[in-house]
Amino acid sequence: MFYKPSRIIFAFAFSFRFISVQAQSQQPDSAVIRHIFREALTQGKSYENLRYLCTQIGPRLSGSAGAAQAVTYTKKLMESYGFDRVYLQEVMVPHWVRGEKEKAQIQSTKGRQMVPICALGGAVGTGKKGIKAQVVEVRSFEELRQLGRVKVQGKVVFFNRPMNPAYIETFMAYRDAVDQRGSGAIEAAKLGAVGAIVRSMNLALDDFPHTGTTRYEDGITKIPAAAISTNGAELLSRQLKADPNLAFYFKMNPETLPDALSHNVIGEIKGSEHPEEIIVVGGHLDSWDLAQGAHDDGTGCMQAIEVLRLLKALNIKPKRTIRAVMYMNEENGLRGGRKYAEVALTNKENHIAALESDAGGFTPRGFSIDATPNKIAEVARWKALLAPYGLNNIGAGGGGADIGPLKNDKIALIGFRPDSQRYFEVHHAASDTFDRVNQRELELGGAAMAALVYLIDKYGL
Amino acid sequence: MFYKPSRIIFAFAFSFRFISVQAQSQQPDSAVIRHIFREALTQGKSYENLRYLCTQIGPRLSGSAGAAQAVTYTKKLMESYGFDRVYLQEVMVPHWVRGEKEKAQIQSTKGRQMVPICALGGAVGTGKKGIKAQVVEVRSFEELRQLGRVKVQGKVVFFNRPMNPAYIETFMAYRDAVDQRGSGAIEAAKLGAVGAIVRSMNLALDDFPHTGTTRYEDGITKIPAAAISTNGAELLSRQLKADPNLAFYFKMNPETLPDALSHNVIGEIKGSEHPEEIIVVGGHLDSWDLAQGAHDDGTGCMQAIEVLRLLKALNIKPKRTIRAVMYMNEENGLRGGRKYAEVALTNKENHIAALESDAGGFTPRGFSIDATPNKIAEVARWKALLAPYGLNNIGAGGGGADIGPLKNDKIALIGFRPDSQRYFEVHHAASDTFDRVNQRELELGGAAMAALVYLIDKYGL
Repeated sequence: MFYKPSRIIFAFAFSFRFISVQAQSQQPDSAVIRHIFREALTQGKSYENLRYLCTQIGPRLSGSAGAAQAVTYTKKLMESYGFDRVYLQEVMVPHWVRGEKEKAQIQSTKGRQMVPICALGGAVGTGKKGIKAQVVEVRSFEELRQLGRVKVQGKVVFFNRPMNPAYIETFMAYRDAVDQRGSGAIEAAKLGAVGAIVRSMNLALDDFPHTGTTRYEDGITKIPAAAISTNGAELLSRQLKADPNLAFYFKMNPETLPDALSHNVIGEIKGSEHPEEIIVVGGHLDSWDLAQGAHDDGTGCMQAIEVLRLLKALNIKPKRTIRAVMYMNEENGLRGGRKYAEVALTNKENHIAALESDAGGFTPRGFSIDATPNKIAEVARWKALLAPYGLNNIGAGGGGADIGPLKNDKIALIGFRPDSQRYFEVHHAASDTFDRVNQRELELGGAAMAALVYLIDKYGL
Repeated sequence: MFYKPSRIIFAFAFSFRFISVQAQSQQPDSAVIRHIFREALTQGKSYENLRYLCTQIGPRLSGSAGAAQAVTYTKKLMESYGFDRVYLQEVMVPHWVRGEKEKAQIQSTKGRQMVPICALGGAVGTGKKGIKAQVVEVRSFEELRQLGRVKVQGKVVFFNRPMNPAYIETFMAYRDAVDQRGSGAIEAAKLGAVGAIVRSMNLALDDFPHTGTTRYEDGITKIPAAAISTNGAELLSRQLKADPNLAFYFKMNPETLPDALSHNVIGEIKGSEHPEEIIVVGGHLDSWDLAQGAHDDGTGCMQAIEVLRLLKALNIKPKRTIRAVMYMNEENGLRGGRKYAEVALTNKENHIAALESDAGGFTPRGFSIDATPNKIAEVARWKALLAPYGLNNIGAGGGGADIGPLKNDKIALIGFRPDSQRYFEVHHAASDTFDRVNQRELELGGAAMAALVYLIDKYGL
């Protein structure tokens, strides 16, 4: 486009001239929030910090060397910013390793074709020779049960219900499809299947298999379970129509090792008036092993650290204690989130709010709040202050997995909600890399979180 | 992230079960709009049509073979959808050609370094030998004038004021910086400069020079003007600090050829009750020559066509005439937009609203309206119907360049406003390619436009 002036966009802008940040009490909230966004957009550090985490450390599944390096890196990073206290919290985590790269092949009357798969997290292996079996394709557990043991026994069950593209909010599509990945192996094994192949949780058609946790149940045989790329799923489905007796061969040999020692990483700025009241902001430091874990959830960690850095850089001295937590093991155990809540309970810590960023580093759209109606209404009163920054969706909703264990009658659990359109193209896949993150979108998210933390700190909840 | 349920996102979702689309009059507006979005997200055609335009035709500057192919393609495309009428509108357009690839080199005490530049649209050339001169760096026309003729004469003026990253809405940053590109050559020539080098209009630091129109003024010497990549600008600025007497060499030999015959491409669905009342929706078909013109403005064209296709696919029979227009020559002349308005006036056509999409194919955020306060209030009354689709910013603002010439007291000029964070990274540069467009974001935009057109058609404006 050529230049054309527009009045509406004036509403979202602010002046470029420098306004020194005075003590927050002397300034209206709108001015403080403006300073927060300006600092993030002009001096924000999330993006470069994320670059290091993704490209110099990379994958960091619980128990891995990458996870340990990420603990060291984020601790040093927060120390370098001079937060009042930076410390580690020990936590024992599951230690699952993928082993050698998986292989899968469709063997039909038309020939043999390799397809991209990856073992689901926590899955057992096929043995070194792999498994070769006929395939039954289903769209739901109901359809599977109707087939019955006779048609399923000895076969590989192929769960091929796509994510529903008609949802505006892609997390709804994930919610409706993810039972296949989480419980497919159990339901297939109940009927004697020898393996489960699950269409990747991905709204786009491409060649990346998307991993994620699968579950097993006591008393039900553990069978190997893998994700197949969406293109691979389409191909397999077409081939099955042409040759229902085709064989599917796959080999994967992951292992579950003994639990490993790891850590949550915590940094805090001590409150000046009510240090005993804690506002926690966080993301999870672990990622799946296939990717750099950029959007899931390097962005959330770097934004959490940035919230504290922004407050400090702008000389905003919080009344309450603000804590950034990098939770370990969200992906395959939630041990970090549970440990944090357990220690908080033991130490009788008083958390008034917990904010989590674990939906990607995209343009901010709002916050979803899991709290009493009164507290939700309190947050909603700040809508006018946040709307100029695109934060239009503020209301009741889920907080987040890692902060869930903190739930009680008094705390507000809050989920940061960025635009969701692109998230599931990279989620849990090798495509979740640093170059898929946009600098401005990421820094805006950290500023949005800092603005909310500023308001909660000032007015309480 | 792992799966976590959220109440807030329920609000933005809708059921997957199939609901047949009945006659629109029998359904509430909310249901019709839901059908529009569902159709776009499950059966949308914008993305694949854009793929063809970008990858099979590519650059299409006015007067080029690409522009002519794009005219033929979009005409055939609309005919294939069975619109009631598809036709071309002749328009004479400027015909500027870049010539051989530009070269530029910094020659300092530290050695010689090539830097990426591109001629600005409409610029004159340097001659075959190029120009070599000392450089004066300025941030504003005011600073340039203060330097005066003595310090500028015979030199290249380097305009290096960055776009202001502190704006939330990036179009504001563009507005504040683009005078350098539009008028830099004039202001530099007034003081005897031999060339103008302008920092690219890009919020990111990278190696792509971003072109765009530069102007000349009668009576002022036309001097060559080029854009330099943001990384190149940073380098040149650093080198100038180290060696203020360095020489800048550049060579570019574009030409302005005689005006060429081209076309606006128009498709329409005839209104059933008030065919004489026209609602026009459009984008511009021309692009700069360096890129595929994906976001600028292939997306707008494909969305405009999609608006009509969506209405037809859902059996929504508009009362008024709905017209999709691919305007030619927005980038360097606006001849298409002017011609369309001229013909409308000659034919005494009654346009009640004109909607333009020329801000990229990103997630929809709203509409900006240039009309009487009453009409703006009318549109604002539909906020509740549009908010579930992320269309939160609806209010007074600019319409768009191509529809501007239609302005009168009765028409509502409306600009489609998607998320602006990523736009200026690709705008007018070789990076504006199909792979930078996200399918869901693009299709959501077309649906947003169709929903608004549906409401305007049903209720008038």
